[in-house]
Amino acid sequence: MNFEMHLKSVAGDVETALSDLLPEPRGHQAVIMEAMRYATLGGGKRLRPFLMIETVRMLGGNLDNAMVAGCALECLHVYSLIHDDLPCMDDDDLRRGKPTVHKAYDEAMAVLAGDGLLTLAFELLASEAAHSDPSVRVRLVAELAKASGHSGMIGGQVVDITVVEGERDERLITELQAMKTGALIDFSVRAGGIICGVDDTALEQLSAYARDMGIAFQIQDDILDIEGDVELMGKAVGKDQDLGKATFVSILGLQGAKDRAKALGRAAKGHLAAYGDKAQILCETVDFVLERTH
Amino acid sequence: MNFEMHLKSVAGDVETALSDLLPEPRGHQAVIMEAMRYATLGGGKRLRPFLMIETVRMLGGNLDNAMVAGCALECLHVYSLIHDDLPCMDDDDLRRGKPTVHKAYDEAMAVLAGDGLLTLAFELLASEAAHSDPSVRVRLVAELAKASGHSGMIGGQVVDITVVEGERDERLITELQAMKTGALIDFSVRAGGIICGVDDTALEQLSAYARDMGIAFQIQDDILDIEGDVELMGKAVGKDQDLGKATFVSILGLQGAKDRAKALGRAAKGHLAAYGDKAQILCETVDFVLERTH
Repeated sequence: MNFEMHLKSVAGDVETALSDLLPEPRGHQAVIMEAMRYATLGGGKRLRPFLMIETVRMLGGNLDNAMVAGCALECLHVYSLIHDDLPCMDDDDLRRGKPTVHKAYDEAMAVLAGDGLLTLAFELLASEAAHSDPSVRVRLVAELAKASGHSGMIGGQVVDITVVEGERDERLITELQAMKTGALIDFSVRAGGIICGVDDTALEQLSAYARDMGIAFQIQDDILDIEGDVELMGKAVGKDQDLGKATFVSILGLQGAKDRAKALGRAAKGHLAAYGDKAQILCETVDFVLERTH
Repeated sequence: MNFEMHLKSVAGDVETALSDLLPEPRGHQAVIMEAMRYATLGGGKRLRPFLMIETVRMLGGNLDNAMVAGCALECLHVYSLIHDDLPCMDDDDLRRGKPTVHKAYDEAMAVLAGDGLLTLAFELLASEAAHSDPSVRVRLVAELAKASGHSGMIGGQVVDITVVEGERDERLITELQAMKTGALIDFSVRAGGIICGVDDTALEQLSAYARDMGIAFQIQDDILDIEGDVELMGKAVGKDQDLGKATFVSILGLQGAKDRAKALGRAAKGHLAAYGDKAQILCETVDFVLERTH
């Protein structure tokens, strides 16, 4: 099976697991379960659960654990998309080719469905299905909270919406990216290591791989915002450019950004050298991130 | 020391602990730390942390653990207030006598500060300061997620904003209250039992106390919405009445509501009979809830 077929196959498994783990609409509050399912199911590359699952596969760990923890992470990722799309934030109407939650429902339901998915993420991570050892589960909870909180993903979103244009240099947008998207990509891979009980040295190597790939991923995102096709992307493109926002492309130039992404991709793979052939899928993931067109 | 002085003294300790546990403003995202502190510090009866601390005191457990877990719960409670106050929800301008977060900052920061406090709640519960035993910490995380999620507090808010007036009978508003405010009050007391490692029978008794008091608390809230003083309350009053919303008062009548609250208060205290004098503060808390004027 080639890489893209494998990615699609895992995404299909993640979709099935998410459908089982998300609450079925019931009770007088059924509408919020519907909105949570609407936002989460039916699409997405599921890159974060994929990274967690493939890290656990590389390390020879329990794939059922990885699936549940990966679904928890996906719920958290989807919550962040719902809230980022709100009119008071990025004000987007389209996500994964469908109306955003506040368009399909309303703003109140978008706020609440996001809150519900964030809360569900921690409920899933704390459940025995995520790991038999409570000390592993509580570490996953602690690390996800840190990665997604005020010094991680949320902090990055705050920087993105508040820092004025004149202050955006390469250092700042690297810091912003490391928080806004990097911290969760780092968690995707680290969580795999935590589930498998690897030592701190191995965990640091996994993080180094994730960090380099995370920046490469963001650079490619910025490139796609210039070169991407709105139909393939399933969301608006050219938005950062229209807003005059500094991106890796506006700072490094298009070719400079492509070169930087390639160098980071090589570095990312280098951190997994110790795993030899077992690291093949995680290395192909780097290539996929760099070559993706949406 | 009489009860009100004791409540104030504990609230002062909670304020100090919250100030230590909340992040100091720093980095390019400092504004969100400021908003999180603005919303959380400087007021409130801190009833939920108080219940947790006093349950642990009654059971002879570790009060440092109770303080950290109580602060986590207070962060979660404050997040729910911030999001409930948003223009797309209850659209309130005043909270604890101060402008609400979306008034003092803006809507985006109110959404994000709420998200940040929700995430911080789980980070604090998962930290060693909440308990030395990881299996206790992960149980606290799991129970708080359940109490505050789509089948608990968030579910109750959804019912409150979506169910039309004709469907609001006593059964529905009891169910709504049990989710919207009851689930967290239940958790306040149960968490005390979990921290102290009591058995399931004792935990069920604690829950029964919390459930009866929780409904009494909501009935008194509805009474205060009619009889309360806007200056004492620090928020708008008469709002449910103006909106024509069914409440315990509109269904049971003012005297009927007062009688019901008293009966529930007696029942709540009855569940703690086994603890004798040690339950004095938790019993006085019931009286306080029923007699409070704000």
